[in-house]
Amino acid sequence: MSMPIQHYLQFSDLTADDYAWLFERAAVIKRKFKSYEKYHPLADRTLAMIFEKASTRTRVSFEAGMYQLGGSVVHLTTGDTQLGRAEPIEDSAKVISRMVDLVMIRTFGQDKIERFAEHSRVPVINGLTNEFHPCQILADIFTFLEHRGLNSEGMPDPACLAGKTVAWVGDGNNMANTWLQAADLLRFTVHVSTPRGYEVDQAVAGVRSRDSYKVFKNPMDACRGADLVTTDVWTSMGYEAENEERRKAFADWCVDEEMMKAAKPDALFMHCLPAHRGEEVSAEVIDGPQSVVWDEAENRMHVQKALMEFLLLGRVSS
Amino acid sequence: MSMPIQHYLQFSDLTADDYAWLFERAAVIKRKFKSYEKYHPLADRTLAMIFEKASTRTRVSFEAGMYQLGGSVVHLTTGDTQLGRAEPIEDSAKVISRMVDLVMIRTFGQDKIERFAEHSRVPVINGLTNEFHPCQILADIFTFLEHRGLNSEGMPDPACLAGKTVAWVGDGNNMANTWLQAADLLRFTVHVSTPRGYEVDQAVAGVRSRDSYKVFKNPMDACRGADLVTTDVWTSMGYEAENEERRKAFADWCVDEEMMKAAKPDALFMHCLPAHRGEEVSAEVIDGPQSVVWDEAENRMHVQKALMEFLLLGRVSS
Amino acid sequence: MSMPIQHYLQFSDLTADDYAWLFERAAVIKRKFKSYEKYHPLADRTLAMIFEKASTRTRVSFEAGMYQLGGSVVHLTTGDTQLGRAEPIEDSAKVISRMVDLVMIRTFGQDKIERFAEHSRVPVINGLTNEFHPCQILADIFTFLEHRGLNSEGMPDPACLAGKTVAWVGDGNNMANTWLQAADLLRFTVHVSTPRGYEVDQAVAGVRSRDSYKVFKNPMDACRGADLVTTDVWTSMGYEAENEERRKAFADWCVDEEMMKAAKPDALFMHCLPAHRGEEVSAEVIDGPQSVVWDEAENRMHVQKALMEFLLLGRVSS
Repeated sequence: MSMPIQHYLQFSDLTADDYAWLFERAAVIKRKFKSYEKYHPLADRTLAMIFEKASTRTRVSFEAGMYQLGGSVVHLTTGDTQLGRAEPIEDSAKVISRMVDLVMIRTFGQDKIERFAEHSRVPVINGLTNEFHPCQILADIFTFLEHRGLNSEGMPDPACLAGKTVAWVGDGNNMANTWLQAADLLRFTVHVSTPRGYEVDQAVAGVRSRDSYKVFKNPMDACRGADLVTTDVWTSMGYEAENEERRKAFADWCVDEEMMKAAKPDALFMHCLPAHRGEEVSAEVIDGPQSVVWDEAENRMHVQKALMEFLLLGRVSS
Repeated sequence: MSMPIQHYLQFSDLTADDYAWLFERAAVIKRKFKSYEKYHPLADRTLAMIFEKASTRTRVSFEAGMYQLGGSVVHLTTGDTQLGRAEPIEDSAKVISRMVDLVMIRTFGQDKIERFAEHSRVPVINGLTNEFHPCQILADIFTFLEHRGLNSEGMPDPACLAGKTVAWVGDGNNMANTWLQAADLLRFTVHVSTPRGYEVDQAVAGVRSRDSYKVFKNPMDACRGADLVTTDVWTSMGYEAENEERRKAFADWCVDEEMMKAAKPDALFMHCLPAHRGEEVSAEVIDGPQSVVWDEAENRMHVQKALMEFLLLGRVSS
Repeated sequence: MSMPIQHYLQFSDLTADDYAWLFERAAVIKRKFKSYEKYHPLADRTLAMIFEKASTRTRVSFEAGMYQLGGSVVHLTTGDTQLGRAEPIEDSAKVISRMVDLVMIRTFGQDKIERFAEHSRVPVINGLTNEFHPCQILADIFTFLEHRGLNSEGMPDPACLAGKTVAWVGDGNNMANTWLQAADLLRFTVHVSTPRGYEVDQAVAGVRSRDSYKVFKNPMDACRGADLVTTDVWTSMGYEAENEERRKAFADWCVDEEMMKAAKPDALFMHCLPAHRGEEVSAEVIDGPQSVVWDEAENRMHVQKALMEFLLLGRVSS
């Protein structure tokens, strides 16, 4: 317990230098996986996954990823445990972190995961909260670099992000907040366009200045000159009651072919999925040639493997 | 993605030659298991299991089987994912098949599993649909061969099925449909007796002629001369609303000692379980000397191991 | 199937000699774990866990423990299987025990687990019933020995229990019953103080005489001279309807600093968790220097590893 524990609760928990390492490492680990090279650095390590919101992608990517690294997984749902209900979060953190080596939590308020981490003996990873979704942005940037930012050795290089622009079209949600943190840290620009009433909150993201992001009323303006256009469902989990209201408010925030034309000709399209064609994105765009959503989904697994290895073993070389 | 992917969505997806190989392979794998021989051909491979209907046997047999072969399992229930609800089945298939090596699905309509398979990068196995239950019939035939169809080298040999008769007594359900396909392919005869209104549908099974099956009004007639008598619960999962009506209609379709006497003296009794003693089968029969239901249950695991190995690695020899 | 199968359904299922071995073995296994020594005696073995009541601690401790020993786990909840509902318990026992090597059950009545065990081909472990919780008491005694009962070689030694007193304050529940069995077998004394109407039932515990336990009306008297004070929530799972009534009845059965002062100066405090501060225990006590509740929680995992190894492999030496 002498060294401070490195958690991953928000994107800003790691440094630009850490990210440079992580992106390269994810590429190495992905390559091992694709060539069926046995690589078990996390043998005898166990990951506890605590889900207070349902999930397919986060579930499968973390669980399969941990197995690929030789480790094991205990999957807890609200049927098994509810943070803060049967016992204080602090007690759950103390008990669970005595039995496993790593904890991933998908929950509601960021405060719950912060309190858990404070009392945990082992690293805690944010698998989505109302405020942040750092693992998804990690995957998105890695996917962008794979397609548009390889260095001369064919490795993803965040230096290539300099001068690049990401257009976020839609809800000012956990994804948007995390993009703000990422742009601030890794030195690119985010164009944000949300309907009125759904703006991002600079204070939540905790970014110090607005050098790295610009707000646009019109989503078409946000896309202008963008290297990447990305969006999310109009109604995220937990906000279903607002569904009707949101459908009206977000009607003009659909990424369609016209919007993609405003972006650079070689701009990519991403979506963290599940997608609702005809709402936040047209079928032509998500199923079209600029879309890299399936790579993006797969890369969740590879970047998270690099992240888990980093949190448990540091910067290994093999 | 150049080679076509071999799925296992219905019994007719494999050839008679494939089955000859599978039955022998299952015997080899079962022998390894019984002698605690370490055999991990699926190390670093992950199976995703998607359950839209509850299960004990399918769950335990696939999961334990995968572990025995050195692989890993991600178990998804409707709490985690619902095919076709949060996102189109096609999208789920694309995402999940990017992260795992094999998918098993237990769901309602056969069309759902067909659509999933069409967009999957990895083999898909039918773990029960409303129309078919091929893994169960695979286990049943293997169990029959173990008891009545070993060749001179002590291996299960489907050539021994020639001239044999299986009596299906009860619901014209997914099990009955699959027996029809199996008889058509492996050249034995099925006697089918169902209450009026619960007949098998030749078109669903997709068998071309009626050479391989005969329909009987009276279940006793179906059992006459049979080498194997088999049945299923009167009300399968998903049909609970029809329970009362079915109890009346099926009253004469109870496999009891009298019915077993109509079959050959050494006829076997099978049931895919769970069983309702006093309904579709009497306690005397299922707990009697002709019953092989516990072997049948265990064999689910062994034939499925052979199947998973075959779908992922082809015809290995070790 | 020639040798009788060793189950662990109640504390009295093992001998004092077995326990001496288990406590030492748990210490050895814990040491291996803490030094990251690879130790996989249960490779290729699978544990089925059947939960009919929710659980965090039992779930994580058994599952992570099994992985640490190289084994695999199939986790069944009531969504997957309900003992005695879809099929007779006897049938479930026969089927499941054909596919796995070990079964852990958390359920309601002790009779259910007894019937399961009777028809199981593999060892069955009680992971909590209404009557008993032997794995928890195994962990509690191990934790006590770690702190107060090491022999000259630094190993936990149940001989050190001679003359020791455990004060049980609160509900005469499954924990209390199991303490009675343990004291009777391992030759220490239990002081029991419960509110009127919540007494322990000597017949349930099956202890022959009252040499090993004493009953006190006043909880303060029970604590006098105790080496260990321990309690549980006022309302255990399954008794929520009695919540209000119990709050009144148990008001004086709160382990607070005053009560701890009645015990020996170096007395330990334990609680199987989750705890309700301000009800059965004060925050000062559970979060104070005499409390060893986090060690106790972690030790569930280590003693259960020793138990699983013992049931499957006997007294191994490595």
